[in-house]
Amino acid sequence: MDSPVGKKLTGLVAATFTPLTPQGEINLPVIGLYIDYLLEHQGVRNVFVNGTTGEGMSLTVEERKKLAEEWCGKGKGRLEQVIIHVGCMSLKDSQDLARHAARAGADGIAVVSPSVFKPSDAGVLRQFLQEVAAAAPDLAFYYYHIPALTGVNLLARDVLEGIEKQIPSFRGLKFSGSDLMDFGQCVSYCPSDWSILYGMDEQLLAALVMGANGAVGSTYNYLGRKANSILSAFEKGDLTRARTLQFEVQDGISYAVKLGFDVAVNKSLMSEVSGLDLGPPRLPLRPCPQPRAVSIAQRLREGPATGPIPRQNTDG
Amino acid sequence: MDSPVGKKLTGLVAATFTPLTPQGEINLPVIGLYIDYLLEHQGVRNVFVNGTTGEGMSLTVEERKKLAEEWCGKGKGRLEQVIIHVGCMSLKDSQDLARHAARAGADGIAVVSPSVFKPSDAGVLRQFLQEVAAAAPDLAFYYYHIPALTGVNLLARDVLEGIEKQIPSFRGLKFSGSDLMDFGQCVSYCPSDWSILYGMDEQLLAALVMGANGAVGSTYNYLGRKANSILSAFEKGDLTRARTLQFEVQDGISYAVKLGFDVAVNKSLMSEVSGLDLGPPRLPLRPCPQPRAVSIAQRLREGPATGPIPRQNTDG
Amino acid sequence: MDSPVGKKLTGLVAATFTPLTPQGEINLPVIGLYIDYLLEHQGVRNVFVNGTTGEGMSLTVEERKKLAEEWCGKGKGRLEQVIIHVGCMSLKDSQDLARHAARAGADGIAVVSPSVFKPSDAGVLRQFLQEVAAAAPDLAFYYYHIPALTGVNLLARDVLEGIEKQIPSFRGLKFSGSDLMDFGQCVSYCPSDWSILYGMDEQLLAALVMGANGAVGSTYNYLGRKANSILSAFEKGDLTRARTLQFEVQDGISYAVKLGFDVAVNKSLMSEVSGLDLGPPRLPLRPCPQPRAVSIAQRLREGPATGPIPRQNTDG
Amino acid sequence: MDSPVGKKLTGLVAATFTPLTPQGEINLPVIGLYIDYLLEHQGVRNVFVNGTTGEGMSLTVEERKKLAEEWCGKGKGRLEQVIIHVGCMSLKDSQDLARHAARAGADGIAVVSPSVFKPSDAGVLRQFLQEVAAAAPDLAFYYYHIPALTGVNLLARDVLEGIEKQIPSFRGLKFSGSDLMDFGQCVSYCPSDWSILYGMDEQLLAALVMGANGAVGSTYNYLGRKANSILSAFEKGDLTRARTLQFEVQDGISYAVKLGFDVAVNKSLMSEVSGLDLGPPRLPLRPCPQPRAVSIAQRLREGPATGPIPRQNTDG
Repeated sequence: MDSPVGKKLTGLVAATFTPLTPQGEINLPVIGLYIDYLLEHQGVRNVFVNGTTGEGMSLTVEERKKLAEEWCGKGKGRLEQVIIHVGCMSLKDSQDLARHAARAGADGIAVVSPSVFKPSDAGVLRQFLQEVAAAAPDLAFYYYHIPALTGVNLLARDVLEGIEKQIPSFRGLKFSGSDLMDFGQCVSYCPSDWSILYGMDEQLLAALVMGANGAVGSTYNYLGRKANSILSAFEKGDLTRARTLQFEVQDGISYAVKLGFDVAVNKSLMSEVSGLDLGPPRLPLRPCPQPRAVSIAQRLREGPATGPIPRQNTDG
Repeated sequence: MDSPVGKKLTGLVAATFTPLTPQGEINLPVIGLYIDYLLEHQGVRNVFVNGTTGEGMSLTVEERKKLAEEWCGKGKGRLEQVIIHVGCMSLKDSQDLARHAARAGADGIAVVSPSVFKPSDAGVLRQFLQEVAAAAPDLAFYYYHIPALTGVNLLARDVLEGIEKQIPSFRGLKFSGSDLMDFGQCVSYCPSDWSILYGMDEQLLAALVMGANGAVGSTYNYLGRKANSILSAFEKGDLTRARTLQFEVQDGISYAVKLGFDVAVNKSLMSEVSGLDLGPPRLPLRPCPQPRAVSIAQRLREGPATGPIPRQNTDG
Repeated sequence: MDSPVGKKLTGLVAATFTPLTPQGEINLPVIGLYIDYLLEHQGVRNVFVNGTTGEGMSLTVEERKKLAEEWCGKGKGRLEQVIIHVGCMSLKDSQDLARHAARAGADGIAVVSPSVFKPSDAGVLRQFLQEVAAAAPDLAFYYYHIPALTGVNLLARDVLEGIEKQIPSFRGLKFSGSDLMDFGQCVSYCPSDWSILYGMDEQLLAALVMGANGAVGSTYNYLGRKANSILSAFEKGDLTRARTLQFEVQDGISYAVKLGFDVAVNKSLMSEVSGLDLGPPRLPLRPCPQPRAVSIAQRLREGPATGPIPRQNTDG
Repeated sequence: MDSPVGKKLTGLVAATFTPLTPQGEINLPVIGLYIDYLLEHQGVRNVFVNGTTGEGMSLTVEERKKLAEEWCGKGKGRLEQVIIHVGCMSLKDSQDLARHAARAGADGIAVVSPSVFKPSDAGVLRQFLQEVAAAAPDLAFYYYHIPALTGVNLLARDVLEGIEKQIPSFRGLKFSGSDLMDFGQCVSYCPSDWSILYGMDEQLLAALVMGANGAVGSTYNYLGRKANSILSAFEKGDLTRARTLQFEVQDGISYAVKLGFDVAVNKSLMSEVSGLDLGPPRLPLRPCPQPRAVSIAQRLREGPATGPIPRQNTDG
């Protein structure tokens, strides 16, 4: 039986970009097309809206509400789950967005730690999360752990301690970090109806072997099919194939990192690959030079010039 | 003659705390009393509102507007200058607050770098600042530089490069950092009608010798008199006295740091010293244990147990 | 056919502790017993001597030579491979130790990046490695990558670029980091006769799925049997069992980290578990309080009080 | 009366570069000429040998001894004080060098914290220093505090706590950091016959106002005359002149930093300015491209193209 706050979130979840007009206003009409693209071209059926990839923190509360409504409205009956990220620097803004997400028909909400004032320990962060969750008690609640972005160096496992008592609607976490001891200890702690979603697309396979239930990431917008192949190879026990595919993803992301890779470049890359017009990023992000996105898209399609994986075997 | 956007900001500027009720709502009636206290007990005549000390980022846009109105309204004719910090993660929120500050009668606005998305270079940060300043072109505009908080590791001097062309209302900066080469290069760059205000209260004297025009800080709320004595000793060339006073401030702050010192503790300390009821901090800050504030207040009053400065002279 | 510089290094490699007398002098007679223990109780047949775990950087060049001789001498015909770490701050010291390791009969040498002066790019680090390798051209050479310790934030993959041309004896690397994209790109680059050894024991399973050939670590001194079980479960495709065992290791290490876990504590733990008398650490490490080592040893034996893995399943 | 371990160290101290031959061997004959240059062209009468600037950690113990002998021997009767840095990763090496420095006739020794293994608290670092000092109890002993290089984030003030009891020969510290609260608390703690020397040349003036007795730095090799002018302007109370000179130094160093400035570039700059042939750096430092040193030397001589200080005054 499903838990009262919805069914378990598994598989791939695209962390969506926010379409903007050339003038920098949110561009709602693109969202329906965006959903078509994810379903038809990438096989991705879940979205994570207004998160890091969506420049959520650069948007006003009103903009975030309109985006949440559009994703929930257009996604209804088509997407499996729409998760709205409602993390803000201000607790009151987060509560406001949580209540709104419930009204808009979201399947769940997620909250990142505030990062201007950093919680001094896991207990006070858990209390912050609790106050947000209490504003939408019937929505599945996820903690979004991304220490490299927030600078909040708490263990996710410590944040989870006893959280089921403080937040009855708690259903899991998005873990965007490379500390797989902390990740493994979270997997070990979580009951089986919680979702443990990994957020570093470039090393998804490592999280799968540690027990991840799925993944939330920006590259699933345009590499969803390949990532789905990693998931199914892993499920079949074909680790060699899973690894080969993961190395291809790593090659592309490494290439992007060498050229300079941030949310602005990533957004431009998505426009390039998908044909959707996502527009520019908002300041303080600097728009991506067009040739950079083109070059990364090419690398993702074709791999390195010398073959899919540069293997230099010296022992014949 | 005053420059069109107001007279030069000098001397001490208190970075104000935000009074909250026990229920966590903003407590506007305290502000009039707060102004009385600063003027009568600390000799501080300028305020910096809704900044780090004021938990600005933990407040909603509406709350920040109400606070700005109250400080401007109650401060009118009493305070010399009321500077409203309007920095936000969202450019649009900052523009909204800038326009509002102009209507509310502020003497100037200040903007910190957004820190979730970090500007990739000084040019794009300057562009962000420009877009905010343009929303209130008749208000003196200050850049608020605090790299340890934002994690934005750009040189202030690079942010200043050519800023007078992009932001005609630019009038200076609050420099909260310990890189005094960067600070000195800013002093060297700035025309004489700009204000260069230092933001690390514990080493104010070092900034004065490098050419600071004044200082913005949280401790000036309750150590304003002592800091004013540092300023006047320095102006008179009495460096020995300035140093002795600075060491006393350092002793108190060092003591606080050993016990644990953040904005919550600082706020509680201000309540303890001033008798004003500033209330609790807002989450994710954890309220200060009362004995800690009492103990720090005592140290500030009385110095270390063994005398004002623990000097152990072995060569008698 | 074996490559000229020895056979491929695989499986577990214990990063050995350095036995000291109570007076802080190296205690060579313990080493023979240490080898007995590794072979008989842990099933570990390779050692990595004078590395981080061995306090290599706290030893003089002469001490490191004596230790290398003892490990090579006593290990001959019993251990499979003895790898001597010869990394130093001074290139000349490293060259001296490399030549000595060849004379002492080592199976290979490894070099960490110098960290007081940090190589400014991968090319200059590769050149440093090359100069050391050239002093012992017939010994298998390994690069020891541990950015969190050295503060040298270069990608291992960049260090490998073309290294086979500069260092004909190059045979692989010890990768002690959590960036599994970089790790995967190294696996992808390396020819099949090179060894890619992982160095974060707490997430070994993640590296195995990414293609690791083996592992070098301190915990294999006392958790070698369990780690060997992880290796064999993984090889059989029994990922559930591998994960369960990995979580047990994580539980123990997490527990140690909560109590305070550094090389001194680790060394004391090894004495406690093995019964070998490894003695104190050398300054600047502070000796481990005895109860701490006892408590960690107990946790490793018995798991958490509430069962082997604290799983709280709410959906019965 | 002088304290038993020598007279107080004041004024400028050049942190010396280590001359190497083109083949990378230490080049002792340059040292006599180097001393001539410091005395005759820069007015600098004290040296700090084998420190960071001298690539001390890249040298072998034997090389460091030969250099110490040469500096002490050639400096005798000419230099005021020769301080030998004897900090090493290995306590035993440091003790060996300390004993040697005493035999060689040094005026004092200094020790930096080891940084591969980082002392976990101030007490254990003090114990490490004590063990070195005890090997040369008749030599003035200085602690060398440089947290940005070592990554050892302890307060110098905490290291000083009670150090006079543990190290009777303790005579002060070289403070190379920007935390002037910690610096001020050290000044406040130290008896008047100890020396508090500042190590960030670019903000010397700030340390003077906080009570520094002198300064140790690499730029005093080639900017000693200007730094001496800062010292004397400060002593006369002419802060405007001191500040102007400090800004000129800052302009030059900022320019160097923009081009890339490390010990290798610094060494090349010294060769360029002084005409001494200091040779290349040792790996892992990469030799400085010659045009970079020439360009920085020119900037130091001539200031920025648009005048000594780029002051853009908009208010006529």
